[in-house]
This record gives sequence, C-alpha cells and structure tokens, in this order.
Amino acid sequence: MVASTKTIAFLTDFGLTEECVAVCKGVIYSVLLDVLVIDVSHNVPPFDIRKGAFVLSQAVKWISADAHLAIVDPGVGSQRRALILETEKGYLVGPDNGLLIPAAENLGGIKRIVEIQNRKYFLPEVSSTFHGRDIFSPVAAHLIKGIPINEFGPEVDANDLSAAPWSKPRLEDDKLLLEIIDIDNFGSARLNYFKDAQIKDFKIKIGDSAHILIEEREYKFKLVTIYSDITEDEIGLIYDSTGCLTIFTNKGSAARKLKLLAGDIIKIKT
Amino acid sequence: MVASTKTIAFLTDFGLTEECVAVCKGVIYSVLLDVLVIDVSHNVPPFDIRKGAFVLSQAVKWISADAHLAIVDPGVGSQRRALILETEKGYLVGPDNGLLIPAAENLGGIKRIVEIQNRKYFLPEVSSTFHGRDIFSPVAAHLIKGIPINEFGPEVDANDLSAAPWSKPRLEDDKLLLEIIDIDNFGSARLNYFKDAQIKDFKIKIGDSAHILIEEREYKFKLVTIYSDITEDEIGLIYDSTGCLTIFTNKGSAARKLKLLAGDIIKIKT
Amino acid sequence: MVASTKTIAFLTDFGLTEECVAVCKGVIYSVLLDVLVIDVSHNVPPFDIRKGAFVLSQAVKWISADAHLAIVDPGVGSQRRALILETEKGYLVGPDNGLLIPAAENLGGIKRIVEIQNRKYFLPEVSSTFHGRDIFSPVAAHLIKGIPINEFGPEVDANDLSAAPWSKPRLEDDKLLLEIIDIDNFGSARLNYFKDAQIKDFKIKIGDSAHILIEEREYKFKLVTIYSDITEDEIGLIYDSTGCLTIFTNKGSAARKLKLLAGDIIKIKT
Repeated sequence: MVASTKTIAFLTDFGLTEECVAVCKGVIYSVLLDVLVIDVSHNVPPFDIRKGAFVLSQAVKWISADAHLAIVDPGVGSQRRALILETEKGYLVGPDNGLLIPAAENLGGIKRIVEIQNRKYFLPEVSSTFHGRDIFSPVAAHLIKGIPINEFGPEVDANDLSAAPWSKPRLEDDKLLLEIIDIDNFGSARLNYFKDAQIKDFKIKIGDSAHILIEEREYKFKLVTIYSDITEDEIGLIYDSTGCLTIFTNKGSAARKLKLLAGDIIKIKT
Repeated sequence: MVASTKTIAFLTDFGLTEECVAVCKGVIYSVLLDVLVIDVSHNVPPFDIRKGAFVLSQAVKWISADAHLAIVDPGVGSQRRALILETEKGYLVGPDNGLLIPAAENLGGIKRIVEIQNRKYFLPEVSSTFHGRDIFSPVAAHLIKGIPINEFGPEVDANDLSAAPWSKPRLEDDKLLLEIIDIDNFGSARLNYFKDAQIKDFKIKIGDSAHILIEEREYKFKLVTIYSDITEDEIGLIYDSTGCLTIFTNKGSAARKLKLLAGDIIKIKT
Repeated sequence: MVASTKTIAFLTDFGLTEECVAVCKGVIYSVLLDVLVIDVSHNVPPFDIRKGAFVLSQAVKWISADAHLAIVDPGVGSQRRALILETEKGYLVGPDNGLLIPAAENLGGIKRIVEIQNRKYFLPEVSSTFHGRDIFSPVAAHLIKGIPINEFGPEVDANDLSAAPWSKPRLEDDKLLLEIIDIDNFGSARLNYFKDAQIKDFKIKIGDSAHILIEEREYKFKLVTIYSDITEDEIGLIYDSTGCLTIFTNKGSAARKLKLLAGDIIKIKT
C-alpha cells in the first residue's frame, strides 16, 4: 500500500460460503485496483439490520476508511432507496433501512445525503436480487476513486431517512428507559447508553448499584469495572469494550438468566 | 496496489479454522510479494467438487485475476493430475477432477492445458496430503510471476480431462432435460440453464408457465422476475442473480418442499 | 505491495461475526498503512490456548512475517504479562500464557523477551477486556514500523515465561511417552513427535508396527506414508502434512474410536 491507497471497509450478511463477497470485491477492483478492502464482518445474521448496525457503528470508531460499504438489505428489489451518507470522517454507502444511522453518528454526524440513482455508475445489467454487486459496490468504488457525491443522484433530507434500528434513551417520570441494542456472544445485553453519553439525570457511579426494572420486576445491579468484580451468582453492570452500558454475569449468559432480548426496554431509577 | 500488481483468486474446501489457507498464502508470498490474493471461498463443503465448481464458475465472471487457484481435491495423493488451464481471461490452477471446467467455459474456453510435473516449481518436500501448499500454491505464484506455462509440464488434450460435475441440457422427445447443479442457501434449486443460453426449443417467456416433470409428477411453475411475484404458497421459476434458471418459493425452501437434490434431473415440456 | 511492505500474520479466537478482528486491523492501519495483514485463523475455539498454539506453530513455518500477532487470552485484564518475543525469523506478540512458545521454537528459538509496559504505544484509553485492540495491535504495528524492541518495556528471563501448552516427549523405562497435542478436523490425533525430531531410542521405520499403550491397553499400529495404506478397519500411524506423528483411521475418527483427547499421554515401546 502506498500513501494514496484508498480504503473501503466492507460489511454484509452474505456469509463466507458462497462467492457473493468475493464477487463484490471483484467489481470494486475492476473500477479501482489500488484499494485496500477491510472486511468488517460478512457473518451478520441474514437480514438482521439491528446487529449489522451495531457491528458497523462500532467498527467505524476504529477503522479509518474512505468509504464504509454496508449491505444488510432485506428490501432489495423493492422501492427502498440506495444511499450515500457523507460524514466528517468518510462516506457510508448502503440501503435506506436504518443500517447506516448509528455509524453516521459515530463518524461525527451526517453532512449530506444522496440517493443513488445515476445508472452510469452501476453495472450495465442490474439484477433485482443482488444490488450489492450491481449497484453498491461499483458506486462505492467510483466514489472513492473521485467522482463527486452529487454525481450519483439527488440530495435527500435527513428527515426522510429510515430511522436507526434502536431508540434513544428517554426519561419517563423518575426513570431512564433504555433499550437493549445487542446481545453479545456471551449473552451480555448491551444498552443504548454509552460511557461518554451525558444524560444529566443518570448518576450511577462505579461501585454504585442501579435499581433496574425488567418487565416490572425490580433488580439491583452493581456497576463494576471488571467482570470478576461480581460473583458467579450475581448480575452486574459494566461499560464493556464497546463503551455500552451492559448487563452481564461473571460467567454464563445474563440474557438467558433474565430472559432478555434485543429490542427490550428496561427502566433504571435515576 | 500498483498497476503491475498480480492477482490470484483463491478457492478451497480447507475451512477457516486451521492454518491451511494462510499457509498457502505464505507460500505464494514467498515466491512473489506483490500479489493481491482475493479469497473466493474457503468454506466449500469438504470434497464437494460440484459446489466448488459452481462457486468458482460464478466468481470468475466478476473477478478479473491473473490466476484462479482452486483446490477441492478428494483425490490428493492418488494419480489424479494437477493442471493449469489457460483461457482467454487468465489461468486456472487445480486438480483434474472437473472442478475447473465450468469456470473455464465462463472465462471464454480452454486454449491450452498443461499437466503440472516440473518439481522445480514445487516446494522442496512434497507431502502426500497437502498439494495445495506443496504444489498448487507455488506453481500458481511462479506462473503469474512470469514462468511460461510450458515450463510446468507437458500439454494435455482437452478430451483427456475429467468432465464437469454436471451435465449439459439435452432434448429428449418433446422435453428439455435439465440438471439441478446447486441448492443455494435459501433452498432454491439452480438448473444448468443460463439466461443467455440459446436453446432453440426452449421458449418460456417471463409471465409464461412451464410444465415441469419432477420424478414423473407434473407441475406448472410461472417464470417471474422478482421473488415476490408469486404468493408464499406457490412455487416459481426465476433467473436468479447468477443467471441460472432457478426453482424457488417466495419464502422458504423449494428444495425441501419438492425434495430436490443437486444432481437431480427435471424435465420441462418445450 | 512493494518490497518495503511490512507483514503481520494475525491469529485470534475472536471469531468472524463481530467487529473485533476488523477493529484490530483498523488500529494497525492507523499506525502504518503500508502493511500486509495475513489472517492465520480467527476461529480458534474461545480461550483454547492449546489449539491456538498448534495452529500458530504450524503457520510460522510457512508464513514469513515481520511479526506474528497472536491473541488467545483468557487472562485478559488480570496480571498476566503481555510479551514480545524476538526470534531469528521475526517477532511474536501476544500474552504470556504459553501460546507463543511452540511457534518461537519453529522460528529458530527465542533471542530476547520484552514485557510490554510502555503506554506510549498503547491506545490512549485501555479497556480491561480488549487488549487485542488497545495494546497488542498498536504495539505490533509500532514494532514493525521500526520502534526498537527495548522501547516497549523491560527484558524478561526465558525461565520466567509460562510453559508451552504441551510437554516434550520423554523416556520412561523402555517406553517413549508422547502427548496428544491436537485432534484435527478428521479426528486424527497429532502427537508431540515431529518427523525431523531426533530421539535416539525411537526407531520405528515406515512399514514397521509400533506397540502403543493407551490407558494401559496395548495396540499395534503400522507406520505408513499414505492414508489408504491401511484398511478402513485398521488404525495407523502417519507423519501428516504438519510433520506430526499422527494416529489415524483411513476413514472416520481415530479419536472417537480410541476415546482420545488432546492432552492424553500415550506410550510407545521403543
């Protein structure tokens, strides 16, 4: 790689058994050979926009790329839009289904949105089932090669985008309502509250216990800094390596113990 | 990557758990550092020549590589030949077991075949179980580095090659006999009939229904352009993103519903 | 890649579903863009130091890299040391839990050991759970970029290192005691005895039978050169493609037939 090498970070739910990921790379290289493609994940569960959005939003914090190409696209072939989001720190390219939104926030916020329409930058023949190959990959490659973003189509208002696959924290009476945005490999439940978030009424400090309501049942979980700060019978809170406030057990699955699912809302007394 | 960078597309059934794939890359880089290795798939089911041949044949349509290195090799250590196939659009390197044949057709057809025999381009010690490392990888690397193909061994007549793992479409009375060449991840059955094939007596058009015999039972399947053109109870035909005429259901597995397996022959009334 | 390109071979137990592997690469590229990262495996079973050590020790024999970065680290966040091992043929970077030792031997032996302590080369914020991202990746990148090894921390005596995850062959009376170091994908049991080892009292030649004691029961296994040299009912010995003396069956799993596990000791009559 030389200093001028462009980079694309690449996330899909295509899996690594069939040729789909390699075919997209083949299309990218056919536009631009001097590109470094960084595989973020291709094992997002099929159609799981929430998981894809979480993995992507984490990856962009650590991977500096000219474009982040992300394809988890259950609506392929329908009228859902194809998008380029311009941010302070690079482009996001993918479908308009919420997948790109949390990543855009972690890249400093959206500066401009373009709907991909200009067939000049598509493959000559566009299938109804594989826009990753026919539209997204060639567009991402042309974009980082230097084609101006406005060449690809009309601008779109941010208010017209599909929403992120999870909500923001919100206050209700004396409680903070948080959503479980991801269950990790170990069964820990990551919440939509990040270490560096500033919510005035959330005052739990390391060593404190939080009063948490899960389906109206109340628990007390201590906020700790390493997993072994609680016993194997206890359940705790930790800011995990992603920065998410996370419900965990020292060994075993908190999600199984407490019957937690991604998308559940829990309440913390402030 | 600079313009002179050589590329190898790489497919195996080695899996990604052990070191085998990386070891082959280590051998390639030891011959030639300025090479881009594009992983096509290493999750071909072990010894599944048919699946490997299908994935490879699709990949070569989109990946421009100096050499396509493909290793699904149940006969390793036996007398099966090791081959280089020269095509219009790059080399194929792999065992003589049919794996390379459909890909060669998609690369414009075979121009020359060489049996790999010259030990000068092998690793110094050749095991009986890992020719991917000891023979195929170093030969592919030397080949794209510029060693002339005839240096590797004697030419072989195309008629002496092992056949492709699936048959050609054929006419029998008033029926076209097609073979299922692949069951995809969703359970759709891909047939050995491609969108751009020209078979005079095959006249089904979009919107028409085909009369299909599976194990002597007759069905009527409509040829459509997007999956949602049929209801969830129906079974349809579509040219999927690979270009294969494919038997599918809107949601769920056509293979399970109709008890279809790769290798089965179905009959279409012309 | 140009001749000055640096290479890192990369092994972890992070899996390929989440963003962890890509995040580490993002950190590496942020230090040094002109680097080739060769993925050895990221599917080592979680926390399986033995399997990781075996895969790594094989990979280093074939992959010439400036640094081999290896992270299987159940003790992350505890007091276990983080290490750089300097060998004749490149650096090893990883935790002090035995993971790196067999690889170091295959790289010509350890010349110098440094405990990683200098926070200057860590990420600004170090989590307690993801040293792969926060410590090992940036340190490996700075190391191959040219920072002298002694900049990273104090030297450590080789006698203070955690031991390899398997023992050396040893003689006891008239028997050679060997440990099963790995069960491969097919269920063959690899022993801690390599083809090129020189143990004076081990005299089994190709075609000979070895008298082997497994849990005090005696078997006779013939040493052969290809798998099909024994019938499907027999059990044999072979030097497999890794060079390990290996207990195998022609088809099927020797480990299952004989109830063998990694870590078991078997005895061979000399």
